[in-house]
Amino acid sequence: MNKIGKQTLLYKNKPCLLGGYAVVGPKEGQGNFGKYFQTVLKDDLFGENSYEAAESKMMQTSFYGAVDDAGIRNVDVDVFVAGDLMNQIVSSSFAARSFDVPYLGMFGACSTMAESMLVGAALVDGGFARIVACATASHFSSVEKQFRYPLELGTQRPPTSQWTVTAAGCSILSEHGSNIIVESSTIGKVVDWDVKDVNNMGAAMAPAAVETLKAHLSDMGRSPDEYDLILTGDLGKLGSEILFDLAEYNGIKLGNNYCDCGQMMYTNEQKTFMGGSGCGCIASVINSYVLSRMRKGELRNVLLIATGALMSTTSSQQGNSIPCIAHAVVLKRRD
Amino acid sequence: MNKIGKQTLLYKNKPCLLGGYAVVGPKEGQGNFGKYFQTVLKDDLFGENSYEAAESKMMQTSFYGAVDDAGIRNVDVDVFVAGDLMNQIVSSSFAARSFDVPYLGMFGACSTMAESMLVGAALVDGGFARIVACATASHFSSVEKQFRYPLELGTQRPPTSQWTVTAAGCSILSEHGSNIIVESSTIGKVVDWDVKDVNNMGAAMAPAAVETLKAHLSDMGRSPDEYDLILTGDLGKLGSEILFDLAEYNGIKLGNNYCDCGQMMYTNEQKTFMGGSGCGCIASVINSYVLSRMRKGELRNVLLIATGALMSTTSSQQGNSIPCIAHAVVLKRRD
Repeated sequence: MNKIGKQTLLYKNKPCLLGGYAVVGPKEGQGNFGKYFQTVLKDDLFGENSYEAAESKMMQTSFYGAVDDAGIRNVDVDVFVAGDLMNQIVSSSFAARSFDVPYLGMFGACSTMAESMLVGAALVDGGFARIVACATASHFSSVEKQFRYPLELGTQRPPTSQWTVTAAGCSILSEHGSNIIVESSTIGKVVDWDVKDVNNMGAAMAPAAVETLKAHLSDMGRSPDEYDLILTGDLGKLGSEILFDLAEYNGIKLGNNYCDCGQMMYTNEQKTFMGGSGCGCIASVINSYVLSRMRKGELRNVLLIATGALMSTTSSQQGNSIPCIAHAVVLKRRD
Repeated sequence: MNKIGKQTLLYKNKPCLLGGYAVVGPKEGQGNFGKYFQTVLKDDLFGENSYEAAESKMMQTSFYGAVDDAGIRNVDVDVFVAGDLMNQIVSSSFAARSFDVPYLGMFGACSTMAESMLVGAALVDGGFARIVACATASHFSSVEKQFRYPLELGTQRPPTSQWTVTAAGCSILSEHGSNIIVESSTIGKVVDWDVKDVNNMGAAMAPAAVETLKAHLSDMGRSPDEYDLILTGDLGKLGSEILFDLAEYNGIKLGNNYCDCGQMMYTNEQKTFMGGSGCGCIASVINSYVLSRMRKGELRNVLLIATGALMSTTSSQQGNSIPCIAHAVVLKRRD
């Protein structure tokens, strides 16, 4: 079995991260990871007529960039595994339409990048594909208007809110060719602590993050300090603090090796309250900052935990709480 | 490699279909497959306050039914792989919330059942899971109001339209324990022939079905008559005819062994124009009619091709055509 414990997959054939690429909007380009992103857009419409089309084009661009970074051709990709936050994940499907590549659509809200990578790595490890491309994207303007209010309304944002990042990221996973391997992954369960405030996603998602972290460490028999970096997706400032506390309550001591992409995405001057959110958040950071530092050997063991809020506007309007999930993926240098 | 040709996965360890269950609405219970469905609801609200909650409960019920049919316990399921047509696949995520099982959300519109089964079979075949549950659901009332018009409006339906089925289906895939194996699958590519009419899904999806059929037969070196049954999901009457013609144009002769679940779902007296649609369509037929006839040995080689229309109301309102996809799965008796 390549399954360890209750939720963790071990990739024995060492599928690797061959290439990656991130495309972000202007605001993200001015943020803390700005110098790592491969493409920073000058205009977040990206030459398109709608924000939805721009989001899809960003995903396409990240795919072509990642293919190029991996030194392969589009036709070498056996499967494109992708998802996003748009209804019916149209950004991914419209992106996939432009490639001549078999496509599997995923949905895990902001956990989608980890989900795509864990499924992609399983396909490579199981010999079902030689090369898989995994991607997600989010766009402030398409996401805000779909999930919250029309942008033109200029609605005041509550202090617990986060700013949906305009970002796309694509990873190329392969049988061989890189010393950065996808070592293992942990599939999350749905966790719902009855948070109903859609402007406090950090509080809703933190319990899912801690459950997956617990399951991962238990399944692998590890402690958090065995990782150079434990990176959550978009818990934001408040969610990260809740995770820190919940972890401690569960006997897991997170230290300086813990970081959240959402919390770190923007500078304080950028006034985003709790920081960034959206599935493009961790996707863009993995495929720029993390990839770059792993290639240099500055990072050798990285635990990625992407969290997702699995609600819709309809489910919230009908009074439901927010079910959440977190999936984890471990990247390792093997030399 | 467990990949054959360009798009086909071959499951060498013979993961099998251990159990299945279908839950359908009253109208579907009166249709052609009525006597095969394990549960036919008397009221399509299923005791809930909303059609969305009813849809999710139908998926839950199909899961519990399939677990029971497979002779296992809920906790034996390593992964729940599911998706649906609701925005952010809330029916699946809310169903998953009620199980203590790791969850992977999928989206392939009405191709989701085949997508879930092909991913689930890969997880079992690759040793990443012992038992996987795959499920989808659709509900006439939740889907129609989300994608088309408020039900109360009583909008006239055009003659090319289909009726979204109220149905859920769940399959339990396992390492061993059944003589019905998941032999292979073919991952589809996105196909778009510029159809923009959301009331003519059959015409939009048929080209995707023929592309996947072609790829599957070519990758496996087979002809259509090697299958007892080739079953598409919800092309409906018109879509099935288009597929028949397109297949012939491509040198593929479909015969009496070809059937479409949507076309067959309702009787002529039920007045659904082109027949049924929705991701629950093929899901409910696989887990009742197909499963039952395979267990009896009346069917031994079945090619399932589920097609999906990957649009959203936003993508259509913005003037886009409908990108479509089809995924195929082969079920075989091994004795």
